Amino acid sequence: MSPTKNKTYWKDKLHEIIYEADTPAGKLFDVVLLVLILASIILVMLESVRNIDAKYHNALYVGEWIITIFFSIEYILRIITVKKPFKYIFSFYGILDLLSTIPMYISFVFAGSHALVTLRALRLLRVFRILKLARYLGASNQLRDSIIASRVKIFVFLFAVLISSVIFGTIMYLVEGEDNGFTNIPKSVYWCIVTLTTVGFGDIAPQTALGQFITTIIMILGYGIIAVPTGIVSAEYSKSLKKSENDTPNPPSKKLNLNTQRCSNCHESYHDDDANFCKVCGNNLH
Amino acid sequence: MSPTKNKTYWKDKLHEIIYEADTPAGKLFDVVLLVLILASIILVMLESVRNIDAKYHNALYVGEWIITIFFSIEYILRIITVKKPFKYIFSFYGILDLLSTIPMYISFVFAGSHALVTLRALRLLRVFRILKLARYLGASNQLRDSIIASRVKIFVFLFAVLISSVIFGTIMYLVEGEDNGFTNIPKSVYWCIVTLTTVGFGDIAPQTALGQFITTIIMILGYGIIAVPTGIVSAEYSKSLKKSENDTPNPPSKKLNLNTQRCSNCHESYHDDDANFCKVCGNNLH
Amino acid sequence: MSPTKNKTYWKDKLHEIIYEADTPAGKLFDVVLLVLILASIILVMLESVRNIDAKYHNALYVGEWIITIFFSIEYILRIITVKKPFKYIFSFYGILDLLSTIPMYISFVFAGSHALVTLRALRLLRVFRILKLARYLGASNQLRDSIIASRVKIFVFLFAVLISSVIFGTIMYLVEGEDNGFTNIPKSVYWCIVTLTTVGFGDIAPQTALGQFITTIIMILGYGIIAVPTGIVSAEYSKSLKKSENDTPNPPSKKLNLNTQRCSNCHESYHDDDANFCKVCGNNLH
Amino acid sequence: MSPTKNKTYWKDKLHEIIYEADTPAGKLFDVVLLVLILASIILVMLESVRNIDAKYHNALYVGEWIITIFFSIEYILRIITVKKPFKYIFSFYGILDLLSTIPMYISFVFAGSHALVTLRALRLLRVFRILKLARYLGASNQLRDSIIASRVKIFVFLFAVLISSVIFGTIMYLVEGEDNGFTNIPKSVYWCIVTLTTVGFGDIAPQTALGQFITTIIMILGYGIIAVPTGIVSAEYSKSLKKSENDTPNPPSKKLNLNTQRCSNCHESYHDDDANFCKVCGNNLH
Repeated sequence: MSPTKNKTYWKDKLHEIIYEADTPAGKLFDVVLLVLILASIILVMLESVRNIDAKYHNALYVGEWIITIFFSIEYILRIITVKKPFKYIFSFYGILDLLSTIPMYISFVFAGSHALVTLRALRLLRVFRILKLARYLGASNQLRDSIIASRVKIFVFLFAVLISSVIFGTIMYLVEGEDNGFTNIPKSVYWCIVTLTTVGFGDIAPQTALGQFITTIIMILGYGIIAVPTGIVSAEYSKSLKKSENDTPNPPSKKLNLNTQRCSNCHESYHDDDANFCKVCGNNLH
Repeated sequence: MSPTKNKTYWKDKLHEIIYEADTPAGKLFDVVLLVLILASIILVMLESVRNIDAKYHNALYVGEWIITIFFSIEYILRIITVKKPFKYIFSFYGILDLLSTIPMYISFVFAGSHALVTLRALRLLRVFRILKLARYLGASNQLRDSIIASRVKIFVFLFAVLISSVIFGTIMYLVEGEDNGFTNIPKSVYWCIVTLTTVGFGDIAPQTALGQFITTIIMILGYGIIAVPTGIVSAEYSKSLKKSENDTPNPPSKKLNLNTQRCSNCHESYHDDDANFCKVCGNNLH
Repeated sequence: MSPTKNKTYWKDKLHEIIYEADTPAGKLFDVVLLVLILASIILVMLESVRNIDAKYHNALYVGEWIITIFFSIEYILRIITVKKPFKYIFSFYGILDLLSTIPMYISFVFAGSHALVTLRALRLLRVFRILKLARYLGASNQLRDSIIASRVKIFVFLFAVLISSVIFGTIMYLVEGEDNGFTNIPKSVYWCIVTLTTVGFGDIAPQTALGQFITTIIMILGYGIIAVPTGIVSAEYSKSLKKSENDTPNPPSKKLNLNTQRCSNCHESYHDDDANFCKVCGNNLH
Repeated sequence: MSPTKNKTYWKDKLHEIIYEADTPAGKLFDVVLLVLILASIILVMLESVRNIDAKYHNALYVGEWIITIFFSIEYILRIITVKKPFKYIFSFYGILDLLSTIPMYISFVFAGSHALVTLRALRLLRVFRILKLARYLGASNQLRDSIIASRVKIFVFLFAVLISSVIFGTIMYLVEGEDNGFTNIPKSVYWCIVTLTTVGFGDIAPQTALGQFITTIIMILGYGIIAVPTGIVSAEYSKSLKKSENDTPNPPSKKLNLNTQRCSNCHESYHDDDANFCKVCGNNLH
C-alpha cells in the first residue's frame, strides 16, 4: 500500500544512508565522505609539490584514483537511488558532485587539469548539514540578510571603485610609462586596484615624483573608501540584530530545520521531525 | 501657439532621442552609447598592450576614430538641439562629453594623449539615469549624506594624517638616509603614507634597527587610525538609517524621479511623469 | 585553632609574598618579577643580534642564566608554599611558568631552543593582576563577550575564506604556473590568503594578464570581506554597550575583584576584601 | 587706572597682532605666518632633493634663513609682549615654536639637523584657531571623547598585539632562520608587526613551507584583529552621537569659543566676545 512498495529494499536503504544523516549508518557515511574530501584535497596539494611528488608519486596517484572511483560510485548511487534523478543532477549539490569528480577523468586529455579536484573543497559545505549546524547557517543567514540589504549600495560603491581605477590607471600609465613597469593600461588599472585595496604587492611601484604624488592621492582615497563598505555592513547588521531582538524570540512559525531526511521520490528535503510521508509527493519517508 | 512652433520638427525629435530614455528610440540610442563608451575604453586599453597593438594596430586605430567621430557628431547634435546650448556645454555632463572626445584630436599634437580617452569611463555614470536607477542613486544618496555629515571630521582626520606623515617622513629620512632608499624628504613622506595606509609596496623599506623601530610605531598608528574614518562613517550611516526609518515611509513630498525627459529649451530635467509643459520655462515637452 | 597552625611561619609568609600583591613585600616581589621578565626577553633578543652577541656574549649568557635560576627557584617556591601543588602546576599560570623556564635547560640538548624564552612574554599578562587592573580586564571582558557572541559568525566567515582560498589558489597555480613563483598549490593557497587579507608581500606576484585579472577579483573580494568581521564585532559590541547601560549601573551582585589574596591551601583566588577565611576550604587567609 | 597703564602702547598693539586674529592686522599676521610655515616646509623638502638642491642651493638656503630669522623675531616678540613670558614659553605652542626654530641654528653644529624644520608642520595646527574653526575642533572633540572612552580597551588590545608579535616573531626566527632574512629576533618581531597590520612590505618574506603556514595564521589573526579597534571606536562614537542628540541642542552653558583674544598679562585665552577685562587676572583686554 505504501508508495514505495515497488522499490527494491536496498535502494531505499541506500538512499537513507547516502542522503540522510539521522541514522548511524547515514552519519558514518557522511563522516567518511568528509574525511575523503579532505584527504583528496591534501593529496592533490602534495602532488603539486615537486620533491614530494618525486618520492611518492605512485602512492599519491593511486590514492587519488581510489578516492575518485569512490566518488564516482557515490555519484552513480545518488542518481540510482532517487526516483527523479534529474532533480538531483541539476541541483546545486548535484552539479558540484559532478564537477568535483570529472577533473580526474579529464586529466587523461588535458594534463594538469586534475588539480581542479580542489573544487571538492566546496563539497565541504555539506559539513553544515551533517553536523546539524542549522543554527550556524541561521547565524550566517542574518549576516547574509544584511549583506543583501546593502547590495545596491555595495554595487554603487564597486562601480565607483572600478571607474576611478580605470581613470587613475590611465593617468599613471601616461605619467610613469613603460620603463617603470606600467607597460600598458590594463596593467596600470590592475596596479591601481592593488593600491586602492591597500594590498600593495610592490612588483610595480611608481618611480617618478609625480607618479608618487598621484599614488599618495590614490592611497588616501583607498584608505577612505575602505570605511564605506565596512560602515554599510556594520550599520545594516546592527539594524538586523535590533529587529531580530524586537521580534518574539523563537517564533513558532520559524522552526529550525534540523532534519536531514530527503524524499527518495522527489528529492524534497525540509521535512518535520515527525513526518512519515513526504509533504510534496506523499512518498513514504521510512 | 506652443513656444516650440518656430523649431523644426527634426530638432525636437532628435532632442527626444538624444536626451531622453523613455521612448524606444531614445532607449536604443542610450544603449548604443553605453556600448560604444565601453568599446572605446577597451580599444584604448588593447592598443596600449604592445603585442596586441603590433598585430591589430590599424583595426584598433580605425575603430577608435569611428567611435570618436560618432561622439563628436553626438556632441554637436546635443548643442544644436538645445535652445540654450551654453547651459548644456557648461553642465557637468557637457564638460564630460567634451573632455572625453577631444583627447583623440589632441593626439595629433601630443602623441600618447589619446590614452586619456579612458576619461569616457566617467560617461558610464549615465547608466544610472538610463536604467532608471533613481532608486540606486537614492541608496547612494543616503550614503552620501552620511559622508557629508562626517566631512568635517574626515577633514580633521586627513589633516592629522598629513602632518604626522610630514614629521615621520622627515625623521625616517634622517634615520635611514639616502643609502637605504629614503633619498629625499618628499619620497620619505610618500613612503610614510604608503605605510600609514597599510599599502606597503616594499620598494622602499627601512634597513636600520632604529628605522624599523620607528616604522613599527607608524604601522601601529596607521592600524589604529584606520579605525577612525570607519567608525565615523559607520556611526553616521547607522544614524541616517534610523532617521529614515522613523520618517513616514515613502512620504508623498519626496517622489523618486524616474522621468528622463529634458526640456529642449532650458535644459531642465526633473519633470513629473504627467507633465506636458516644462515647469521652469513653459516650453512644450512633447 | 586556625587551620594553618601546622604550617611553618615562613611558608605562609612566602605564599603571601609570591602569590599576593596587597602587602609591600608582595608588591615589590611582583614588580621585580615583571622587570626580570622584560629584562630576560630583551636579553634573548639582543643575543640573537649577531654583532651584539659577538661583543657581549658572555655578559648576555650569564644574565640569562641568573634570571632563569631566579625563575626556577620562584617556580619551586610556588609549588612548595601551596598545599595542593598540582592545582597550581596544572593551572594556566602554572603551565606558563614552567614553559617559560625550561627552554634554557633544554638548550643544552637542542641548540637555539633558548630563544623560546620569549614565551615569558605571556607572563607579562600578570601585569593586569598586579596593577589591580580588574577594571581593565572588565573592559576587555565586555569586548570578549561581544567576540564570543559573534564567534559562530566569525567561524562561518573563516570557513568561507579558507574554501575560497583553496579554490582560487588552485586556479592561480594552473594559470600562472611554476615559472611565475606559484610553484605548488599549498604555496598558491598561501599567496591567496596573503592577497585576501590585503597583506600583499609581493614576493610572489601574478605575471600573466589572466592571472592579474583573477587577482583583481580576489582583491576586491578581500576588500569586501574585511567589512564583514568588522561589521559583526562593531554591531555586537554596540549591542553589549547598550545592554550594559540599560542595566543598573554597578549592580551590587557584580563586584569588581580587586583583591589579589590567594588561599595557600586550595589556590582559590577571588576573595572579598574583608574575608578572613577562604570561602572554599575555610583556610585562614592571614 | 587700568592695569596695563604701565605698558608701552606698542607692546599692547603687538600683542594684539601676534596673539589674536580678530583685528585685520592680527588676521593678516596669522595668514602670513601660515604661508611662511608652508613655504619653509616646502623649501626644506626641495633642498633634500639632490638635483633641485644642486641647481638652486643658494636660493633655498637664503630662503630658509629669511624665514627662520622671521620666526626667531616672532618668537622673541611673543615673549616680550606677554607679561608672564614663562607661561608662554612652557605652553604647548611655546615649546612648539621654539622646537621649530632652533633646528636651523643647530645645523651649524650637526649637519643635516635642519631637516627637522619640518616640525613646523605642527604649527599648522594653528590653522584651526585662526580660521575660527572651533566648530571643527568641536567635531573632533566628539571624536576625541569616543577615542578617550575606548582608550583602556585599545591599550589592552595593543598589549595583546605586542605580546603575540614577540612570540610569533621568535617562532618565525626559529623556523625561518637567518638565511631567509629573519636575521634576529627584533627583526622578526618587526616583520611580525608588518604582517599583523597587513602592511606587508615584502622585503622579508617566509620561504619555508612551515614558515608560510605560520604566516597564514598570523595574517588571519591580523585580519580578525583589525575588526576590534574599528568596532570599538565605531560603537563608542555611535554612543556619543546618540548622547549628544538626546541632550538639549546647543545648551546655553556650552558656548563655542570663537574669540581669539589672549590676555597680555596672564596668557589666558578663552574669553567671551563681550569681555572687556581678563576673567583670570582682571587685565584690560583692549
